[in-house]
Formats: sequence, structure tokens, C-alpha cells
Amino acid sequence: MIVVMKPGASPQQLDHIVKLVREMGLKDHVIVGTERTVVAVIGDDRFKDKSRLESVEGVDKVVPILAPYKMASVEMKKERTSVKLGAAGAIGGMKVGVIAGPCSVEDRVKLLEVAHAVKEAGAIAIRGGAFKPRTSPYAFQGLAEEGLKYLAEAREKTGLAIVTEVMSIEQIPACVEYADVLQIGARNMQNFNLLSRVGETTKPVLLKRGMSATLEEFLLAAEYIMARGNTNVILCERGIRTFEDYVRNTLPLAIVPELHRRSHLPVVVDPSHGTGKSYLVADMCKAAVACGADGLIIEVHGDPEHAMTDGAQSLTPKQFSEMMKSIKRIAAAVDREA
Amino acid sequence: MIVVMKPGASPQQLDHIVKLVREMGLKDHVIVGTERTVVAVIGDDRFKDKSRLESVEGVDKVVPILAPYKMASVEMKKERTSVKLGAAGAIGGMKVGVIAGPCSVEDRVKLLEVAHAVKEAGAIAIRGGAFKPRTSPYAFQGLAEEGLKYLAEAREKTGLAIVTEVMSIEQIPACVEYADVLQIGARNMQNFNLLSRVGETTKPVLLKRGMSATLEEFLLAAEYIMARGNTNVILCERGIRTFEDYVRNTLPLAIVPELHRRSHLPVVVDPSHGTGKSYLVADMCKAAVACGADGLIIEVHGDPEHAMTDGAQSLTPKQFSEMMKSIKRIAAAVDREA
Amino acid sequence: MIVVMKPGASPQQLDHIVKLVREMGLKDHVIVGTERTVVAVIGDDRFKDKSRLESVEGVDKVVPILAPYKMASVEMKKERTSVKLGAAGAIGGMKVGVIAGPCSVEDRVKLLEVAHAVKEAGAIAIRGGAFKPRTSPYAFQGLAEEGLKYLAEAREKTGLAIVTEVMSIEQIPACVEYADVLQIGARNMQNFNLLSRVGETTKPVLLKRGMSATLEEFLLAAEYIMARGNTNVILCERGIRTFEDYVRNTLPLAIVPELHRRSHLPVVVDPSHGTGKSYLVADMCKAAVACGADGLIIEVHGDPEHAMTDGAQSLTPKQFSEMMKSIKRIAAAVDREA
Amino acid sequence: MIVVMKPGASPQQLDHIVKLVREMGLKDHVIVGTERTVVAVIGDDRFKDKSRLESVEGVDKVVPILAPYKMASVEMKKERTSVKLGAAGAIGGMKVGVIAGPCSVEDRVKLLEVAHAVKEAGAIAIRGGAFKPRTSPYAFQGLAEEGLKYLAEAREKTGLAIVTEVMSIEQIPACVEYADVLQIGARNMQNFNLLSRVGETTKPVLLKRGMSATLEEFLLAAEYIMARGNTNVILCERGIRTFEDYVRNTLPLAIVPELHRRSHLPVVVDPSHGTGKSYLVADMCKAAVACGADGLIIEVHGDPEHAMTDGAQSLTPKQFSEMMKSIKRIAAAVDREA
Repeated sequence: MIVVMKPGASPQQLDHIVKLVREMGLKDHVIVGTERTVVAVIGDDRFKDKSRLESVEGVDKVVPILAPYKMASVEMKKERTSVKLGAAGAIGGMKVGVIAGPCSVEDRVKLLEVAHAVKEAGAIAIRGGAFKPRTSPYAFQGLAEEGLKYLAEAREKTGLAIVTEVMSIEQIPACVEYADVLQIGARNMQNFNLLSRVGETTKPVLLKRGMSATLEEFLLAAEYIMARGNTNVILCERGIRTFEDYVRNTLPLAIVPELHRRSHLPVVVDPSHGTGKSYLVADMCKAAVACGADGLIIEVHGDPEHAMTDGAQSLTPKQFSEMMKSIKRIAAAVDREA
Repeated sequence: MIVVMKPGASPQQLDHIVKLVREMGLKDHVIVGTERTVVAVIGDDRFKDKSRLESVEGVDKVVPILAPYKMASVEMKKERTSVKLGAAGAIGGMKVGVIAGPCSVEDRVKLLEVAHAVKEAGAIAIRGGAFKPRTSPYAFQGLAEEGLKYLAEAREKTGLAIVTEVMSIEQIPACVEYADVLQIGARNMQNFNLLSRVGETTKPVLLKRGMSATLEEFLLAAEYIMARGNTNVILCERGIRTFEDYVRNTLPLAIVPELHRRSHLPVVVDPSHGTGKSYLVADMCKAAVACGADGLIIEVHGDPEHAMTDGAQSLTPKQFSEMMKSIKRIAAAVDREA
Repeated sequence: MIVVMKPGASPQQLDHIVKLVREMGLKDHVIVGTERTVVAVIGDDRFKDKSRLESVEGVDKVVPILAPYKMASVEMKKERTSVKLGAAGAIGGMKVGVIAGPCSVEDRVKLLEVAHAVKEAGAIAIRGGAFKPRTSPYAFQGLAEEGLKYLAEAREKTGLAIVTEVMSIEQIPACVEYADVLQIGARNMQNFNLLSRVGETTKPVLLKRGMSATLEEFLLAAEYIMARGNTNVILCERGIRTFEDYVRNTLPLAIVPELHRRSHLPVVVDPSHGTGKSYLVADMCKAAVACGADGLIIEVHGDPEHAMTDGAQSLTPKQFSEMMKSIKRIAAAVDREA
Repeated sequence: MIVVMKPGASPQQLDHIVKLVREMGLKDHVIVGTERTVVAVIGDDRFKDKSRLESVEGVDKVVPILAPYKMASVEMKKERTSVKLGAAGAIGGMKVGVIAGPCSVEDRVKLLEVAHAVKEAGAIAIRGGAFKPRTSPYAFQGLAEEGLKYLAEAREKTGLAIVTEVMSIEQIPACVEYADVLQIGARNMQNFNLLSRVGETTKPVLLKRGMSATLEEFLLAAEYIMARGNTNVILCERGIRTFEDYVRNTLPLAIVPELHRRSHLPVVVDPSHGTGKSYLVADMCKAAVACGADGLIIEVHGDPEHAMTDGAQSLTPKQFSEMMKSIKRIAAAVDREA
């Protein structure tokens, strides 16, 4: 880090900062500039709390230099990580892996129909919420374990892997029993206890970016999981909250190449939540694959008009199938498959 | 809600919408305008999923009319709610209630010192984290139950109530045992399982607004707690995430009168997180009281340079005491006390 | 529009709203719901000031139904607009039109070199600022008319059309004399006097979205130009300001299909400003073409290390040429050319 | 500035950076850390384009240290600036100066009535737009010079100073002739040609912050005016664009003390645009004065229901008078007057 002193900071104030830096086990390097004096701090300060130096008299600001994550970084691991989804395939490799299915598991028969349809169109995994995070306490909250059983049946019949959201520590055992991938939702990206616990399982984790998380916070959330031993983390961009009002969220696709630049973890895009509008999903799928996404996660429902959740952003099986054809062409144009 | 049809929507499309509305148990009222046809939907659609109508052919958009929360609303309860903090006082009344203390409980002796100092300056409760949500897995995570015991000792010696954060369901029993108020942090504002569980306790809950939560989502989070029977909810604004970079968060104080307009629940402001800079805290305290805040929650640390967390935004006991003097004057200017 | 009354609004308050609506030359339609009364207002209220009804006693809110733009809308003109760029080609058609060149015109020889390079790689127009909007008054402000002359020479030698920014009304005559397309920068998107004046010229206008403009404000800015008679408007997305900090701006590509859904005007994407990082530009070009952009505008500089402006986001001619090859493949995958 | 090299940057890359720094006329200071090498750049680089160094091979990022503004800074001028508003008073002193009046000048008689009312309640200046920036080309655009004449008559009869917006260079002479203060609107905060030209007049300038301008960009806009010789600049916060939807803009009051910390210029708050809701204005006025605002600018209209612009955010003269009483009490509580 660099500690920038205020113009006119006194020698005593400077000495005090030097003392505090040394107390932290770090080395100081004072540079007297023509306009300002700065203290370059040498050593691994990645995990020190820098914020406290900001309140010291004579200090103008503290500028971090090192990224605060380590295990998720490309410096730590040069080759890209590929995460296996059971026997169904992988995310992070030549092939763009597509995860598709209803927002929530509502009904056994409908789920099986959707599963067959997305499998045929080329998906490698089925998504579907058994436990649903709902903004309103009065809304449908999911079928719980019964939903997981339907998902397991769908896997058995189609070979698709299961991706399902775990919302709280108590749900981990059931989800581990039935699912191939545990999803951490955007609202739980900084539910640190939950992150630690899924980090203790051996199941791959699909981690959604919080809707106002910075890239650094996103990678630190992955780090929480990895620090407990589970390095099979898939990063998922699902849109951020901005002032834009023609979409439910703004989908910032530049994060795909930026995450690849900083991290070895695979990156998946969720254009369903990322736009909130079914008519925008296919175009955003194409854009995501074009800029290097390793996978997609997409809401598909046989009858969106009667979906219990997220009807507005669900594709029909037919729309999904057309979208899959179009991304196969895009994938080929960037030397990949889909 | 109002369903707005696209220009040129067909009579069949309109009929189909009418059919779907009736299926939902609601009444329709079709209005053919000069430019657009709209369907006004009559009945309590507050808890219906409107989103699915958006994906229907011929529909341009769906506009909600009713607010989706009920128990938190002024329509439900005219008189303002005052939440008692143990024997120490209340939030939501004539007196502006001030909660103060360190970001995290770090040390027994230091905690007692701060407790005495803030009590003397006029605080009614001590805050302090025993369980800490930290962005980095490598950072100090709190003293857990030991921290709660120190807080209890501070209460015993000073008469201050205890406000402490509960981060996960497992921590609820310990927090209920020791604390007077359970705090739900901004990162957990939509941790719906946690909200439901604290809603089953009898302890007052201080609910922090998520850093990108809309006002409606904030009140729905309160509704989650209230729907389980616990109506002693204190709303806390702690700043939102925007593009501004001279502060850690942007503190949008207009939410104070707006929450009072829509809800009977008391409103507290946290200028420590709301700015992230100790030198801005006192001015924002004054502003918050001037626009009607029922309380303040403020980080105070005896030695911010050595604070384990949030040193940059902590006041010293001396700064806190001066701030308290200034807000007493502001409170008097708006016919309240502090 | 729909005027939503407060619960408990009095009959007198409702009558008063009805009276105000009629005064505006519109028809009212009162709907008494089970929870709320609303007044549906019938007639073309597109250009009426609705805001004043919000302050009337008994009114909760006013919800607009009609989009406030007309000439830019698909309802007004079904076939898509193609804007000709001099003799060089067009934006809005089968072929994705690429505009490339330095941020600012700095030097005659360097400009000609870049012009030849981008022409060879497949660009149809050269961009380059003669008048530069600079955040700091102390920064390089452009070569003015001399810069325009260099651009004209580049056009003569390469056949590329010229796209250049006009920052103020006084600069219009010179820009009209030399350029093929007048660019309105993001900071001037709501400089209404400037919009009106370029609307009185016969030159095509490339209109950049303001960095915090809503989609509706963007289309209204186009409407300003079109209302004066100039319908050759190219819409350009160049990134919006959000909390994201790994990019200069967040590039929200879903606006490309959304603009196509609402407007007949062609849409161009600027990934140089849209990311601010040269290493992200090529991937965002691919994504933009994949989701339907009609064109791209890209900063290219022969020696970015010594660029007077925007070096961090400029491609070298070699990088540009590689990018062009990759987008030709993407264009083919979406049945277009580049 | 600090140039941070990538991990593993080569000695050649480091040498190259050193060479570029020296070419810029600055001195380099290389620090080899345990994790990274950084180059501290010594000398006044405030007005150099740092961005280009970011694109150099081996560079990770460039961190600016010096603020890019100078004349607006507290380092340049220790005593606070007080700007005189004709004979009517000043902004920036013991007394909080209140500017009030209609959004736009619509009618001579109504303007005079409002002028008398706000004068009596304690305002020192009247505001009113003669030239109106309107989002829609079809909306009322103002009375132009006729409006300025009405304002002049109001000044003559009441002694109030005139604050009016100048939207383009052509309007400067008329505004200079009639007004006491030239207002630059939020949409023109980065209309650099306009800033330069009002910087050449001798009239005080009230500069509104752009709706997504950073604090640094805001002060640089002031610097544009000051660099041309006009140092009578009043900074005005009028709300920023965020995801919040219960207000037209989010009013970030912490900028008031922060601007005072960095700049000697006086700071005014506009709660009318800052909230967009008349029912929130009075509380935000109190908050602004409590945290140190030097003035307020407020929309007042005799008949908001029939206002041609901004009815929803205008106070009636009666509401204004009550608000003035309340801020006098707040001002006294912070040792000022209003």
C-alpha cells in the first residue's frame, strides 16, 4: 500500500506513520515528492487492515496496491480451471456449457418435460430452485426436498447434471445429497458463513455475483469458499443494479474477459436475471459467448404465462432450442463449441 | 396493476390477458385509449406474481399499483411504533436514541472504557460485533460468545442496552441470550431464512438496508420479520453503493422522511458506514437528526489507529462526546431531545 | 397516464383531479378498485407535463403509459433506417460499419498512417477529434480547424468518411464543411441548443448516450435532432457510470436489442470508452456484433504510449486489424458482414 | 502518480517506464517490493495524461496521487470564499443564503407575487428560468429575454438578486445584462466551451453538479471557470442519479462537508431537484443547513398544480415560509443565521 500524507503534514506525523507501519510487521519507504510525501509500504499487506491508517492525523489517503485475493488469482495458478459437472460435462474448457431449466421446481411432470427439451437442445445441466429466495414473504417459497427429488429423477432420465441453489446452512446436507453443483445466489454472495460451509463440501459451487458487488468482492467471496478447501468454483455474472430501467439488471459483459485476466476460475453468464426480459435473453447469450463466457445459465419454462416465479424472463423450450443453434455458430466463430 | 398492451395488439391477445387475469382471481377493466389499450386489474394483487404477464404476446409492460408490503405500512397502523431497548430507553419517540460502540468487540477492558465514555456522553445502547461479516476470509472474524459476555458486562456496569449483529441462524440463540437488540447487517438484508428466524424471536431487530436495496425491498425485508410475529423492527439506513468515490457509501438521507411517510417503523441512521470517514460522521449525524431520524448508530473506538476493523470511520470518545453536544442542539431545533 | 390516488383520498380530491385532467384537454376514466382508486387518462398526453399532478392533495403517484418520443419510435416508421456515410458506406444494413481512428487528431503524418491502416483492415470511416472536450482545463484541447483539414486529407487519400465531434454551436459550420458525420459527445447529449442546431443541418449525426442517461432520455435527445428535420441519426452506446471500478464505464450491451425493439434508428457501440481498457476492447467488439450492433466506433493510435489523450483505451493498428478479422467471423455467425 | 508493475514484469519493461516518465519531465523512484515493483513518480504530474502509461507492457495500473484541480483547492486559498449576490447579500459567510423562485418564468404577475412572498420569508435572491433545458423537444422552452425582463422588474421591486440559467454561449450577453448570478445547469456541467465563456464574464456563477459527476469532475468544472479569471463560483449539489426510485435524484449531503474540506468555494444545496418531491424538500433543507450548507436554492410556485415545469417539486409560498422558519432554528443550532 501507499500512504499519501497531506500537504504540510509534520515530520512528527510522518514518523508516527512509519512507526505504525513497522508495528504491522511491514517495511516503510518514505518518498519526499515536490508536492506530497508518500510512504510506500513494503511486504505482504494483503490481509492487514489498512483502513485504520486513514484516520491518523496528517494522512490524506491510503492506496492499496496488492489485490486482496490469492487462491482465485492467475498468479497462484496459471492453467485455467475446468469444473466437472458430474458425468454430464464440464464448465471451463473448449465447450461452452449450458445450464437450463425453470426458475423454481413447481411440478414433477413439467420438470421432466423441460429436462428432456433442454437436453435435446444441447444443455449439459438442469437448473431449478427447490429452496427459493423471494423478496416477499408472501410469495411461493419452493418445494424443498420434494423439488430435489424431482430434479434427481430428471437427471436419471436425461443424464443432465443438477444445479440448485442452497440458501442456508441447514439446506446444505439435502442439496449435497441430490445436486451436482451448489449454487450460491446473488443475495447470499456475502453470506460468509454459508460460503465457508459450502467450502467444506466437495461439490462444485456456482457463485453468483452480488447485484452491487465489486469485482474484488466477487473474487473474495470465491476465496472464502476456496480457503476452506473447495477449489471447484464457477463464477457467475447475473447483472448489477444501476439506474437503467428497461431491464431488471444491467449485464456488464466486460467482466467476462476481466475475470479471465485476473482469475483461473471459469465464468458463466446468466442473461435471464441479467436482463429480466425473455426477449433480450438470446441476444445476450450470443454476446456472452462471443466475449469468452465458459457457460450460460438460462431460465426455461414450458408455460411462462403460468410460471410461479420469473415468468417474464423465461424462454420457452422452442425459444431455447433456437438460441442454442445460434450460439453454436457464435461458439464456432471464436474457436469453441457449444 | 395495470397491463399496458402494445400498439396494435390484437383482440385475441387482449382476450387472453383478460382470461389470465380472471384465472388469478382478479377482476379486469379494459380501457381503450386513443393510443393504447390498457387493462386495469381490480382486487388485491399485492402477492400475485405479475411478472409472468409481461411475457405474454401483445403486452408492452405491467405497472404495479399497490405496494407489496402491508404490515410495515402506515395504512396498517397509524400510530408510530416505538421500540424499547431493554430498560435503557427506546427508539421511536421524542428522544433521539443513540447507539454507540466499537465496530467489533476486541478486548474486555477497552470495551468497558468505551461503554463508560459513550454512556456518559448520552448514548442509550452499546453496539459491538461478536460475529463479524468480513469481506476477506483472512480478516479478523470476531470473538464470538466471548465478545457477547464482554458486552453483557458492559451493560451491567453502565445500564446501556446491547445491540449486536447476528449473521446466521446458528448464532441466534447466543445473541438472544445476551443481547437486547439483534442487528441484521446490510449484507444479510435479503437472507430470507435468517429474517424469518429472527422474526420468531421476541427481541427487537435493527434491520440495516442492503447497499443496493430499493425502498420497497427494504420494507419487504421488514415484512419478513413482522410476518413471523415480531413487530419490533427498527429500520436502519447505512448508505448505498453508487459511483461516488470520496465516501465508502453514499448516505441518502431523504429516505428518512420517505420511510416515515410510508411506514410506522422507527428509522435510525448509521453515518459511520454511511460515509466511511470519521471526519464526515459528525456532520451527517446533525443532518440525520435535522431531517427526523429517530436514532443514530455510531462507531466509537478508544484507539482507532489500532482498531481491528473500521478504524477509518470510528470516532474517538472525545469526538463522540462533542458530536452528542451538537446533536442535542439540533434535536431541540426540531422539537426533540437527544 | 394513470393517476393513482392515495388510500382514503376524498371524493373532492378525486373530482379535483378529474377537473385538472379535463383542463389539460384529456379525458378521464375513473376506476374504483378494492384497494385504490385510479384515474386512467385517455388521449395523447405524451407532451403534457404530468409532474404537476403529483403534487395535488390526495394523489399518490402518476404513472406514464406512453413513451414520450415519437419520430424515433418503431411505431412511426416500420423499416429500419440506414444512414449513409458519404460515399464510404452506411451504418444500418447488412454490413456492420466500423469507424476507427485516434481519440484526437494530433499530427498530420500520424493521422494519415492510421487512416491507411484502418482502411486496409476494413473500416469505412475515420474518427478523430479536432475539438476535444477535456475534463481538465489544463489538458490538450485539440487542433481545431487544422485538425479538420488533416481529416479531409485522410478522406481524400483513403476514401474513408469523416466522423468528428462538434462541441458547441460555433463549431458547426467548420465541422459541416469538412466532416461527413457530426458526433455529439456523451457530455453534450442533453445540450439541447446544440442538438437543435445539428438538427438543422443535413449531415448525419452520431449521438452518444450520456453516461447516466436513461434509454428514454437517449431517444428524446435523438428526437430533438429529428424534430428539426434531420432524421439521419445514429445512436451510440458508449458505456454508463456505475459503481464498477475495473473499467472506466460499464458497457450495457442489452441496450442494443432494446433500442432495435423501440426505434428504427441504427445502433453503434463504442467499446473504447465503454471499457476504457485496450485489453477489453476486442472482446467487447465481438459481443457487440453478436448481439446485433450495426456498427462500432473504436480508438486506434499508432503509438498509444505517446497519445495525447486516451492512450489507455487505444488499439494499435495491428490489434485493430486482428480485431477486424475476429468480428468478420462473428458477423457471419449472425448472418451479417463486417 | 504511482505506476504499479505487474508481477513478473521484466527489467526491460521497468526501464521503459522509467524512460517514459523522464520524457514527461518527471523524476522516477523505483521501489522493489516483496510482491510488486512500483515506480513512484515525483514532480507536478497534475496536468499530464497518465492514462497512456496504463497501456504499456508490464504495467498493471497507474494510481494518481495529486488532485487535478488547483485554483479551487484549499491548498491554494486558505480563507473561505464569500460570493456577493449584487446588493442583496452573499453566499458563503455567517448567513445561510436562500435563493427561491419558480422553475421557469411563466408570467409577469405570478412572478412578482412569488418574489414578494419569498423576499418576505427571508430569501436573498430569486431564481427562475428564462431559457429552459427540457428533456423533450415538445415541452415549454421558456420565455427567453422577456422572462429576464420580468426577473429584473422583480429585483427592482423587492431588492432580491437574480439567479438564472444560461444554457448556451449565445445567451450569455442577455443573461449578463439582466442577472446577478449565472447558473450553469447540471446537464451543462461538462459543457466546457460554456464554462470557459462564463469564466470570462465578471458575474458570479452558480455551478450545478452533473447528475453523475464525481467530486473531482465537479471541482474541475469549477476550475474551468476559475482558470479564465472568474473566481466567484458557487458550487451546487442537486442530487445524483442512482438506482433509487422513490426520489427523482439521490441527494448525497456528505458532499457538503467534503467540499468544504477540499475547496474554499461556498456550497449550496438544491433539495427541489435533489428529491423531486415537494413533500421531502423541507426536511432536506433542514439537513443541508445542519451539515454546513452555505445556501439553498428552492423552487417555489404560487400554483404548483398549474406550473408549466416541475410542479411536483415546487413549494407553495406558504410551505416556503414555514420551511424558512424551521431552518432559522437549525442555523442557530450550528451557530449560523438564515
